[in-house]
Amino acid sequence: MSLSIHLWSKWGLTMTNNRPKHFSSEQFPVQNHCIQIGDMLLTRLTQRVGSTPYFAYDRKLITGRIKSLRQCLPNKIKLHYAMKANPMPAVVQHIAGLVDGIDVASLGEIKVALDTVMLPSKMSFAGPGKNEHELSCAIAAGIVINIESELELERIVALAEHLAITPKVAVRINPDFELKSSGMRMGGGPKQFGIDAERAPIVLRRIIELGMIFEGLHIFSGSQNLKVEAIQDAHEKTLQLAVRLARESSIPIPSLNMGGGFGIPYFPGELPLNLAAVGENLQHLLNRLEPELLETQFVIELGRYIVAEAGVYVCQVLDKKGSRGQLFLVTDGGMHHHLAASGNFGQVIRKNYPVTVGNKVGIAETEVVSVVGPLCTLDLLADQMELPKAEVGDLIVVFQSGAYGLTASPMSFLSHPIPCEVLV
Amino acid sequence: MSLSIHLWSKWGLTMTNNRPKHFSSEQFPVQNHCIQIGDMLLTRLTQRVGSTPYFAYDRKLITGRIKSLRQCLPNKIKLHYAMKANPMPAVVQHIAGLVDGIDVASLGEIKVALDTVMLPSKMSFAGPGKNEHELSCAIAAGIVINIESELELERIVALAEHLAITPKVAVRINPDFELKSSGMRMGGGPKQFGIDAERAPIVLRRIIELGMIFEGLHIFSGSQNLKVEAIQDAHEKTLQLAVRLARESSIPIPSLNMGGGFGIPYFPGELPLNLAAVGENLQHLLNRLEPELLETQFVIELGRYIVAEAGVYVCQVLDKKGSRGQLFLVTDGGMHHHLAASGNFGQVIRKNYPVTVGNKVGIAETEVVSVVGPLCTLDLLADQMELPKAEVGDLIVVFQSGAYGLTASPMSFLSHPIPCEVLV
Repeated sequence: MSLSIHLWSKWGLTMTNNRPKHFSSEQFPVQNHCIQIGDMLLTRLTQRVGSTPYFAYDRKLITGRIKSLRQCLPNKIKLHYAMKANPMPAVVQHIAGLVDGIDVASLGEIKVALDTVMLPSKMSFAGPGKNEHELSCAIAAGIVINIESELELERIVALAEHLAITPKVAVRINPDFELKSSGMRMGGGPKQFGIDAERAPIVLRRIIELGMIFEGLHIFSGSQNLKVEAIQDAHEKTLQLAVRLARESSIPIPSLNMGGGFGIPYFPGELPLNLAAVGENLQHLLNRLEPELLETQFVIELGRYIVAEAGVYVCQVLDKKGSRGQLFLVTDGGMHHHLAASGNFGQVIRKNYPVTVGNKVGIAETEVVSVVGPLCTLDLLADQMELPKAEVGDLIVVFQSGAYGLTASPMSFLSHPIPCEVLV
Repeated sequence: MSLSIHLWSKWGLTMTNNRPKHFSSEQFPVQNHCIQIGDMLLTRLTQRVGSTPYFAYDRKLITGRIKSLRQCLPNKIKLHYAMKANPMPAVVQHIAGLVDGIDVASLGEIKVALDTVMLPSKMSFAGPGKNEHELSCAIAAGIVINIESELELERIVALAEHLAITPKVAVRINPDFELKSSGMRMGGGPKQFGIDAERAPIVLRRIIELGMIFEGLHIFSGSQNLKVEAIQDAHEKTLQLAVRLARESSIPIPSLNMGGGFGIPYFPGELPLNLAAVGENLQHLLNRLEPELLETQFVIELGRYIVAEAGVYVCQVLDKKGSRGQLFLVTDGGMHHHLAASGNFGQVIRKNYPVTVGNKVGIAETEVVSVVGPLCTLDLLADQMELPKAEVGDLIVVFQSGAYGLTASPMSFLSHPIPCEVLV
């Protein structure tokens, strides 16, 4: 806890007694009260970008996060990037050289992924509602298609015959358990995702009968989970389910994508996931594999966990005003670029993201302010936070913004210009 | 109530006993079980557009809604369009010929508005956090700038001097009351919007001293309100506040923009606003105006109310699947195009928008289905609704989609193509 206090004071974010605080990390160094991104002072980077607002992603931090994953996870585990988390082409190019595969969710993502060094056979195309055009392109590219329904399987058969290409397919399973404490549940009960576990053996046998290249199973049970026990439990149940499906279908599972769901701390009181404990449990599970999975390749697929903490959203204070005893910093950025930070993306109760004044970190004077954008009442980046005292022209930084930021936001709302994204 | 039942059965939407129902209207005629938009069958329109999903806005319905407003509101009231609700250029072009003014919120919106027949002097530029570039362009265009803070006033002075143009300004007031039962509160208490009512007289006198062209006041107190009493109350208080500010400042108010806030029924149990009662109350208030407002021009500014009910979102069923006893229609559309219908835009509890199968309205067979999109668990267009029995290829229609649809959605999420918008 004293470490956390130390870091907060470093960030210039004073603690409020008896209230949960944001977890801080030292990923962005501070020099002369100014944070650095990619070894560049925020003020200089802002001049280089040439306009605010913008998103900046730190190349070294992405690399470092992938290294940590490699260190903590068993060697046997392959690491895939779910590019929906951040599809910026430069980011995908960088990550493609560091991971073992890429998960894509649309033809738009396929195009970006195919421009990297990643082999198409290491790409998986997941998601319900793929149209025939997307499926055809994926088959032609040699990408592994994650089958989400029995109808989709038949559609792939017809398209592949027309294209005269043997398709590579995996089956997404809707498990009969779900990841506890997950921010977004994707398994258990009736779902639009994947084939219900109880139907899967029939589907697997049909794939083999049809002569398709069967790549394996995808079993995703949730996302944004910070509880190590819940993830450990999901991993154990995922392996059990894969064994059961292999037995029931009498078909070997070449590859098992165990999903991801590793969370990052966004809100006050949240702590980082204990990655080492997740890795140790996985190693333990792999050490006592059932015979059915001894030849299987295991994949962990992560999006948010790889990029979120490497990114910041930067906007500029355009106005500072008091209204009936409250202070407002009005910025040129807001919910149209960063819907999640405004509290309008999947959250039930709005909480503040970690925010600071990026060019005034650790200065003596602080004040309680609300940081708002140019749109409507929903456009709130920080609700009455104690921040370094800011003036017009200062730079507001929203941390934890490398995933589900720009592309998950209503960029055209009120017809403001689209912000830049830079990888530094 | 019997009328409502009749209309629902017309839409092919069976009633569920003891549950609140969606209000229906007859704005889109039905022929051979297919709805018509702009006198065109939905199936034919879909062929014409050439791809799904798309948004379609009915030109006649927009015209009709503006006619109703003209009929119900006093002649003295000018009608402005808040183009943030739907900034599609063709829509703005159409509306510009029918209303008395346009409210813009960004340089992007200014550009679209300036391409219409509307005079710049009838445009008002509102919103906190306008940057210097936007302000300069607005001053040069001769648009009325709604001042949102004292700092913004001084900034306009400096820019106008530099441009050697006398700026036209109005003052947005943060009222000391708020619109009750409003979907989005924009007045009362500390706010980022406008000048606190108690500071306004000082600001008004400063504007006159500076020799700016003072156009009047904007007093907005909320939006999406369906309760006629609340709107009547807000109108009365708005006039009282304007009188008070005119007295306290001894400055006449050339124009008073009373805001809008007229709601439309989205969710089960909601009924349309009683527009006639709003108009009668306004007439009553105008009949007994205080002397300070006898020369004032009154404006009602509406966005959603003009366009929302004239628009539909159309997507196609790509897959139909059962999962553990529930039926899912997987479509090519979803929350990336229509965030509000997915329940992720300002709503606390998710409720269904009115949805139907647009080419099977009123068929005998119905079933309870969930309509989902290709993205994530949040991507839900209809949660277990009773709809006409649909198959792959059928067209899902989301009604009440003419406002805050496409531009208020995270269009680039998962990198799917941007959908078309058509005005028919």
